[in-house]
Parts: sequence; C-alpha cells; structure tokens
Amino acid sequence: MELRPLLQESDSKIIFVIADGLGGIGSDGRGTELEAARTPHLDRLARQGTTGLLIPVAPGITPGSGPGHLALFGYDPLEHNIGRGVLTALGIAFDLQRGDVAARGNFCTLAEGKITDRRAGRIATERCEALARKLRQVDIEGVQVFVEPVKEHRFLLVLRGEGLGDRLEDTDPQRTGVPPREPDAQDDPSRRTAKAVSAFVEQAREILADEHPANMVLLRGFAHRPELPSIEERYGLRACALAAYPMYRGIARLVGMRVVDCGSDLESEIDALHGVWEDHDFFFLHYKATDSRGEDGDFDAKVAAIEALDCSMPGIIEKRPDVLVVTGDHSTPSALASHSWHPVPLLLSAATCRRDQAETFDETNCNRGGFSQMPTKHLMTLALAHAGRLRKFGA
Amino acid sequence: MELRPLLQESDSKIIFVIADGLGGIGSDGRGTELEAARTPHLDRLARQGTTGLLIPVAPGITPGSGPGHLALFGYDPLEHNIGRGVLTALGIAFDLQRGDVAARGNFCTLAEGKITDRRAGRIATERCEALARKLRQVDIEGVQVFVEPVKEHRFLLVLRGEGLGDRLEDTDPQRTGVPPREPDAQDDPSRRTAKAVSAFVEQAREILADEHPANMVLLRGFAHRPELPSIEERYGLRACALAAYPMYRGIARLVGMRVVDCGSDLESEIDALHGVWEDHDFFFLHYKATDSRGEDGDFDAKVAAIEALDCSMPGIIEKRPDVLVVTGDHSTPSALASHSWHPVPLLLSAATCRRDQAETFDETNCNRGGFSQMPTKHLMTLALAHAGRLRKFGA
Repeated sequence: MELRPLLQESDSKIIFVIADGLGGIGSDGRGTELEAARTPHLDRLARQGTTGLLIPVAPGITPGSGPGHLALFGYDPLEHNIGRGVLTALGIAFDLQRGDVAARGNFCTLAEGKITDRRAGRIATERCEALARKLRQVDIEGVQVFVEPVKEHRFLLVLRGEGLGDRLEDTDPQRTGVPPREPDAQDDPSRRTAKAVSAFVEQAREILADEHPANMVLLRGFAHRPELPSIEERYGLRACALAAYPMYRGIARLVGMRVVDCGSDLESEIDALHGVWEDHDFFFLHYKATDSRGEDGDFDAKVAAIEALDCSMPGIIEKRPDVLVVTGDHSTPSALASHSWHPVPLLLSAATCRRDQAETFDETNCNRGGFSQMPTKHLMTLALAHAGRLRKFGA
Repeated sequence: MELRPLLQESDSKIIFVIADGLGGIGSDGRGTELEAARTPHLDRLARQGTTGLLIPVAPGITPGSGPGHLALFGYDPLEHNIGRGVLTALGIAFDLQRGDVAARGNFCTLAEGKITDRRAGRIATERCEALARKLRQVDIEGVQVFVEPVKEHRFLLVLRGEGLGDRLEDTDPQRTGVPPREPDAQDDPSRRTAKAVSAFVEQAREILADEHPANMVLLRGFAHRPELPSIEERYGLRACALAAYPMYRGIARLVGMRVVDCGSDLESEIDALHGVWEDHDFFFLHYKATDSRGEDGDFDAKVAAIEALDCSMPGIIEKRPDVLVVTGDHSTPSALASHSWHPVPLLLSAATCRRDQAETFDETNCNRGGFSQMPTKHLMTLALAHAGRLRKFGA
C-alpha cells in the first residue's frame, strides 16, 4: 500500500544490518550456522525485540541479490525488476545512463556452429580482460559499444544509442549442443537493439575466430536501468548505504540512497556509519561474508562470519538507533552452497516492540517469533511504524 | 472472495465480542495488559477454542476505528473507506443522507493569516457548542449547511445540496506557521463543493473575527457516506449491534446491522443481547473501555477493564452461541497511549474448532495459536465456517 499519505515527521533513526545469505538449513547434529555460532549481542537484541522469518519473493522462490534487496527496501520484487544486464553493470560500478541497454556476456566455446562449453572452460580473468579489450574493436553505426570484463568467462556489454529498447531474447540458449540464438525482439525499439546485437555477435565471431577455447560470446538479460521511485519519495527517509561491494552500492543507488565511501570490511562500514550519522535517517549496512562462506559450502567459515558480525554489533548498537534490524536478503545454506528459498531470520529491536519468546537469534526461535513468517516487502513498513514515522490509517 | 454462492441455511448464531484496542506490547516485567489481567473465563474459552493474531490492515499499519471494524465485518479496509467526515458524523449520530458531504472541523487560532494553534488551545466543549451555533448563520446559495459541535475544538460540517462531490483537499494543512489551504477539487461536482466550502470558510472568518483563541476553522476529510453492501447481502446474516458509543453504532449501521437501543455500559449491552437473541444470527458487541484506558496510557486501568470484561463473559456464554469470537479492532498498548499496528489477540470458540495449545488468552499464547497470524478480513469467513454456514467450494 501507498505509505506516503501516512508519513509523519520524526527525527528517529533506522539501521538495517543486512547479513547477505544469513539463513541456513542445518547440518547433522549442529543445527544451522546461526544456531552453531556464539552470538551474545544478536541474542540480546532478539530478546529485547521482535523476531520472525522473512520470505523474500514467495514461498519456494530463491531470490537473486536484486529482488532480495529490493524487497528489503520495501519494493515488491515481483513488480520491480532489475535485469541481469543491469545487475552485472552495478557489480562492476559501470555508470549506466538512462536508455543504455546492458547485457551479461559469457565467453563460450563453439564447434561447428554449436556451443560445446557455455563458459569456455571458465577462462582466467586476465584472459577475459584481454578478450574484452579485443571486442572493443566492434563498430556499429549509431551505437556506442562498451565491453567490460567481469570475472572468469563473464563480461558486460552496454549499447548506448538513440531509441534502443530492451525487450529482446537472450542469445544464450542456456544449453550446449545447439547454436547461439537470434536475439528476437518484441517491439520496434527493441528490433533496433536486436540489429545492433546481431552486428556485435557477428563481429565478435570474427574477432574471436582464432581464440581457443573462448571463440564466441553468449548474451543474456538485456535491460535498461529501471526507474525506481526513491526511498526519500516513498518513505521520506534520507537514506545512505554502507556497503563494500559494488553490486550492493549499485542497488542502493538505484533506490536513491547516498552511497558512502568506505573500506572493504565491516569495521570500515561501521566507522563510516559514525561519520554520516547526523545527516541521515536510514542506514543500510551490508555484510557480505555470510553469503560468500555459504556459497563456498563451508559451514565452519560461515559460523565464523556470523560470529565476526556479532563481535562488531556493539559499534552499531552504541549509536542507539530507534529501530535496529538484523536480517538477510535471502538464505545461503552452506549445505547447498548457493542461495536458497528458505525464509530468512529477522530481528527488529525498538522501544515500541511487542517482545516475543525468542531467547537466541536463530531460525528455530525466529519461527516462533512475534512477526511470524511474512513477505520481506513488509519489513520497511514495520520499521517505519516502530520508528514512529507512520500516522494511523483511516479515522 | 465472494462468499454468497457458498452460503447455506443454518439457524446457528455468532457473537463477536470486540474489545476495542485489546492488544498491548507489554511493560517491564509485567508482560502485556492481557497477560497481567486475571481472565478465567477468557482463558477457558481460549483452551476450548482456536486462537491467533489478527492484522487489521497490513503489517506496520495502525488502523483507525473505521478500517479496524470494516475488517472485522469482512470488508477489505483497503477497498472500502469511511472518510473522516463521515466517521465524525457517525460519532455524534448525525443522520447523513446520501449525497451529503461531511467534514471534520477544528476551531483554530489564526494570527496575521497564519495558523498558530490548530486546536485553538482545545477550547471547552461548551465554547465549541456556542461557536457552532454562531456558524449556523452561514448562508450559501443552494446549499444547506449543518454545523454540529463534537468535543473541545472539534465540530462536524455537513453540506447538503444537488451534485456535491467529495473529492477535494483538506483546508487543514496539518501544521502551524502557514495559512489554511484552499480546498482544491479533483472533478466538477467536487468543484461545486469546493466553492461552497470556500464560502463557508470566508463567512466563518468574519463571524469568528473577534473570538479568541478560536478565530478560524480548519476542515478535513470531506466525504460522502459510503455505499457498502450489507452484511445480510454478503453473508445472509440478520445482524445486530450492541454498542454504547455512537461511532460504532454508526459503523454498524453502514453495513446494514440493526442497531439495538441499550445503555452505556457492557452490562446493558448484554441485557440487550438477551432481548434480541431470537431475531438475529449475528451479534456485534462492542466494549470501549479497553481502548479508552489504553489511550489514557494507564496500564493498571486497562488491566482492570479487561478483568471487567472477563467478569461479564458468563452473561454472554450462557446464550450458548455456535461461534463466540473475542478480539479487538486494533491494539492500543498503554505504553504507547495510542492505537498501534501490533497484531490483535483472537479467540474463536465453537464445537467445530481444532483446538490449539493456548492455555490462557494473551498475545504470547495467541502467537502460537491455530489461526497463526492472518489479516482480520478473513475472520468473518472463519466464523461462518465454524457456524456451519458455508458449503464447500468447487466439486
């Protein structure tokens, strides 16, 4: 629902500590990573606050980082979409302009016209950089072409020109044994883009002809930068992001947050938090290690990442925010070594909380929590309510 | 969903006991008001029935009395709106006609054209009555004007005439230091209303010129009486309301309930219940004290109000309704001294209940209850189901 008419002025402050991939599913005899971790500060916050479990998109749906974070910021992830091309651009801090069409590229291996390896044997990142430089020779009339290496076989393609649509199909068929697809377009502006993409692909085929194993490209997720209403427009919050990784900085920028310069670890983010405290109402603090160690499939390392977060909490708590939220954008159980659909533990600590019976901060306690299970998109409304920033609805 | 096709005949009876503002958030060491109160009858009902927590509008949204009650009666409060002007009229039992435009008025203080006090120092109700009488001099061609005192600085304005719309902005800017606003209108019928409102405001300015501190008026919540389908149409229930306060009697009338004459306290309402038992299927019994004491910020008094309700329950239970519901329209924690967004404890007792593990009737037990947390608008469907009034859906 539209919150704008309910907003009331307040000098209250809200912090969201987002531990990426926080939730787990447990491992024999040790419970989940959060259950195994020693987390005295988070446990105390859970006891003082209200807990629950968040469902980022819908039951059974595993979110990417885009939908996961949009939902945390109160944007329905089924209504607002960040295309894969855009997310790739955000991830390397490429400055996408309005109207640019971005795509995620893979270097791949082609034999007799058919794809034999969609990732060209995961070539080294240095090789990717060299090949991306070569592709910058591509010349398309009326269209400016940007090719940026990302990591291993991955690169970013951006097309800049007049009237380029983004409603076209991937050239990546997502399987081997078949040729790359034509980028079929769904409207006239996108047919212009498709023509440019076909030209790019044909020139790339020639430029890479003698390369091995990366002798072709696959493209997917063509997308414009979405025009999202800002957090300030929607909630009247002066928001800032304290995030080390480019992708999360990029998502924060998409919703109009000020992105604060900070170092690459949590302590630097917390230092930066202290520096920008007076000028903002909302603070998005992103912690990446929980997801990375989950993706590694390393239970113990994820436990250690959670304990490191817990150790750092006093530096956040000492700011005495009116509302302090700790949760994640999705679960990344180390047992699965990937993002998952499992609901994400949530704690919200505020003087206006109805306490529940959570004794510690973990999946089991959160499942009995006062917020029950709910879609992540409601979290921002609850944070605003607990911060005294919402008037009552109706008379 | 549309229940009409599923209705089946039954002589079962349903009672909703609505303890206004029932939920709390707890106070140091004493839990919530409901936890602190001694409530043997409600506890027994909770043990025999199913419990849960109701979310009146959406997570984090604090409902006014209108949306809170509409949801209890099964009307989606985001689809059906009772404007503030209408609620003000209901609150003093003013008989609004179809097409009337009602507005909530404030007497305010103006200095050099700017508002210095939106409530004119909360003038005494007697003063409000005298000023309202003075404003009845206002003369607008083609429009009949009603001005009724409410309480302190509050009054009701009703404009009656041909083709008056209700889509116009408040003249109340909801802050001081600025002049009252023009009532900008959004369509032609509402422009007619805006013209009448401007005339009213200008004449009021002259009539009140020498008054102090109440030398001006502010108007908000212009609204027609909504045309809601009746409870009888929607659910096939002959419904009646046992409510002492005019506003709740008015809301009940909006959804087509018969409003029964009764005294001003719960015992009178229960006496009246016995008198109308045979002629109705559904009984809405409203108890105000829980909200009033919560609004006062008085924990002990709210506890006492809950205990008084519990003491009166035998007079209701002895009617042996097929379904007995006890819940509230929203929470009013005494710690916040206002309506709040916190989910509302619910118990539903019926022979058809699946029992849960609730031992007592309070927020903590209800949070583990068999209904879990759910939107309030589903309650009426559940009551009909437990009362054997709904056929199965689909073959």
